[in-house]
Amino acid sequence: MRPYELSLAAAAEAIRAGKLSPVELVDSVLDRIEQVEPHLNAYVTVTAERARKAAREAGAVRPHGPLHGIPMALKDLIDVAGAATTASSRVRAGHRAEADSTVAARLTAAGAVLVGKAHTHEFAYGLTTPQTNNAWDHGRVAGGSSGGSAVAVASGAATFALGTDTGGSIRVPAALNGVVGLKPTYGLVPRHGVTSLSWSLDHVGPITRTVEDAALVLDALTGHDPRDPASLAVPAVDHRPGTATDLTGVRVGVPRNYYFDHVDAEVEAAVRHAIGRLEDLGARLVGIDVPMTRYIQATQWGLMVAEATAYHEGTVRTVPELYQDDVRVLLEAGELMSAGDYLRAQRSRTLMRQEWARLLREVDVIAAPTVPTTAVKAGEETITWSDGTIEAVSDAYVRLSAPANITGIPALSVPVGHDTQGLPIGMQLLGRPLGERALLRVGHAYERTQPVRALAPVA
Amino acid sequence: MRPYELSLAAAAEAIRAGKLSPVELVDSVLDRIEQVEPHLNAYVTVTAERARKAAREAGAVRPHGPLHGIPMALKDLIDVAGAATTASSRVRAGHRAEADSTVAARLTAAGAVLVGKAHTHEFAYGLTTPQTNNAWDHGRVAGGSSGGSAVAVASGAATFALGTDTGGSIRVPAALNGVVGLKPTYGLVPRHGVTSLSWSLDHVGPITRTVEDAALVLDALTGHDPRDPASLAVPAVDHRPGTATDLTGVRVGVPRNYYFDHVDAEVEAAVRHAIGRLEDLGARLVGIDVPMTRYIQATQWGLMVAEATAYHEGTVRTVPELYQDDVRVLLEAGELMSAGDYLRAQRSRTLMRQEWARLLREVDVIAAPTVPTTAVKAGEETITWSDGTIEAVSDAYVRLSAPANITGIPALSVPVGHDTQGLPIGMQLLGRPLGERALLRVGHAYERTQPVRALAPVA
Repeated sequence: MRPYELSLAAAAEAIRAGKLSPVELVDSVLDRIEQVEPHLNAYVTVTAERARKAAREAGAVRPHGPLHGIPMALKDLIDVAGAATTASSRVRAGHRAEADSTVAARLTAAGAVLVGKAHTHEFAYGLTTPQTNNAWDHGRVAGGSSGGSAVAVASGAATFALGTDTGGSIRVPAALNGVVGLKPTYGLVPRHGVTSLSWSLDHVGPITRTVEDAALVLDALTGHDPRDPASLAVPAVDHRPGTATDLTGVRVGVPRNYYFDHVDAEVEAAVRHAIGRLEDLGARLVGIDVPMTRYIQATQWGLMVAEATAYHEGTVRTVPELYQDDVRVLLEAGELMSAGDYLRAQRSRTLMRQEWARLLREVDVIAAPTVPTTAVKAGEETITWSDGTIEAVSDAYVRLSAPANITGIPALSVPVGHDTQGLPIGMQLLGRPLGERALLRVGHAYERTQPVRALAPVA
Repeated sequence: MRPYELSLAAAAEAIRAGKLSPVELVDSVLDRIEQVEPHLNAYVTVTAERARKAAREAGAVRPHGPLHGIPMALKDLIDVAGAATTASSRVRAGHRAEADSTVAARLTAAGAVLVGKAHTHEFAYGLTTPQTNNAWDHGRVAGGSSGGSAVAVASGAATFALGTDTGGSIRVPAALNGVVGLKPTYGLVPRHGVTSLSWSLDHVGPITRTVEDAALVLDALTGHDPRDPASLAVPAVDHRPGTATDLTGVRVGVPRNYYFDHVDAEVEAAVRHAIGRLEDLGARLVGIDVPMTRYIQATQWGLMVAEATAYHEGTVRTVPELYQDDVRVLLEAGELMSAGDYLRAQRSRTLMRQEWARLLREVDVIAAPTVPTTAVKAGEETITWSDGTIEAVSDAYVRLSAPANITGIPALSVPVGHDTQGLPIGMQLLGRPLGERALLRVGHAYERTQPVRALAPVA
């Protein structure tokens, strides 16, 4: 196995054991980036010089933790001192971040090496990331908004990455590219220095090749930061899952409604098969009724459109021509939203939080699809379901992930195979607030029953 | 002194000592109500039967605290089981509260005796309470929205009352009727069962004749209630001020800007005189600069109009004719407010909270006028200042009280004399979050240097 193919945990173990140097690992990943970037365009900027220097410095000291010398990509909404945070937008031309975001500073302190800033759907306001191609089929969308991060990890162009998730933007591209994506509990990972889309829904989290890797990254990200008003002050937790795969006593909720409606048959089959594996491991499956489903879309869009519009109102009025058309139209339409609509969405969220908290007393985790379909072809704007219903791609992609943003509960997307066209499928595990350990335990147990996944076969 | 003239503390002491019975006190207050109500119209409903029965029951047991057998008025936004909560509105015709509000239940448990539900400006959405006359001049406004509560206390028609305060609605009528009004820290007094005007600005608090009385009522009101999402879980504090009047070491901030701009000369003179008394008592006066003053009005109205409109949107569309014109126009206009305006107000509030927190590290309390003028004549809608500026009465009345609603800090209005027309003037003391003790200490020290105030000379 070449170094760029290693999981984070395997690379860290090799570095710790002196079998691999940070320089070898970083060089391997940079070579892989050169090889695959012409096909994928996952990166806004590759920081090769800086990465090689950081790798040499990491190689000169004793490894001090699992991220030491590990190559990472950061979604280009995340500030790194001295670099532009472009948000993949012309609006940010000439931008330069003064200081590291909290997450960049924490990962750098843990020894991780930045290899590049990854593409996002412009300002994270969309679910396709049109600049970037899907790692498994270059004619299909990467998913979004953290499309560059997921494609980089899926193709070996980064050992791990950070994304952000406001309506599914970590989980959707993770599912569509066959990697792991974790949206943590609201407030668990500080957002200081990360460009906001919708502050009451925004989360930062890891995109990795394995569930174990997600836990290793999460452990470096958590901890209170008073500069993010939503940051939680909770005791540190070791999120690493053990090696045990026995799930006896774990109650897995399987939705009777909503999560399997208007879902592609191959996606449903793969997710139900994976749920069957959880049962084989000892979990007890419990049928559940998802509450308030007819409020999900209006609540998600109501909160997001209002807050995104408020964030951009200066620039969308002064330099509208610098935005892509899809984002500009959303921002301009957002100015027409009434305060009453926003308040209705806030009140609906309060009720949904209460109802989901009640539901999550009955089960330990919920298992469901992450996205109703595999990746659509680039440029396709709608999906036609078997009953003739037509749905916008953005609505379909956000539909199953939004509840975790609205309620703030953690959600993990785990790869569960490919459809007959070879496109990846993701299973979503949802848990209680601050219940990341349970999600990672179940996800890891599932993963250990599967053959090791190959990287996307790019070029 | 007749019983209805006694302060709460004096009446409680007389009851405790067996020199006064709850029946005598309640009868005296009910007689006083009969005498003054034709001139004042402070009450929506006088609960004479119920009060006499409760007084007999209170008289039959040993007094168990300072509120035992004490006659109170509740603003008619506050639910009492089995009674209508009219909000002084035709919209509430036929209303009947199922259960006591938290504050009504707590006061009843402490032995207080309800003598009536007091008038509010309709749904608390205004600052004059047009149904009720000022206790000192029946041709002038009571102030609002807790006008009935303040007039009842000022005239001896209740020993104490509760009001609610969203932009000044406890302090404004307290100041204009020569009584004490306390708006506590946001979240300190639970609002479950109290009709909302604007949930992020609403507070419940006491209106009394002395600062000591306000402390006695506050002590019965505090304590966490999970049914109010904003309710704070903080340890119980004994708020009663001691008898000492020495203020050595207390830093009293005196605003250099805003609080004395467009303030009537007699009001300014009375408040500055009272501040001089605080200095005589040992306080150190510190000139302060009030932050972000040009945002106060837009922030207060932005939050209040959006939230009030959301609360009333159903009824204002179905039965607009049941509202008074002034309230209906505000609610209908509120439907035009954009989500962006509301979010700007929320963000401005966040910044104001930070700036006020900084300011309140420099001083212990801030002393300023409560209202820029004394009570205007009934029906007057504007005030013309000496520089020719014309200001709406509602804007003028809310101007100096709104900062404490926006920031959530506690604020106490204390009577500091009368103008040459005999109309009362209030001084406002503002403090740190949960700094009620400091406010009550300073207010009480001031009060003890003054002659005992007479009741309003009604009829």
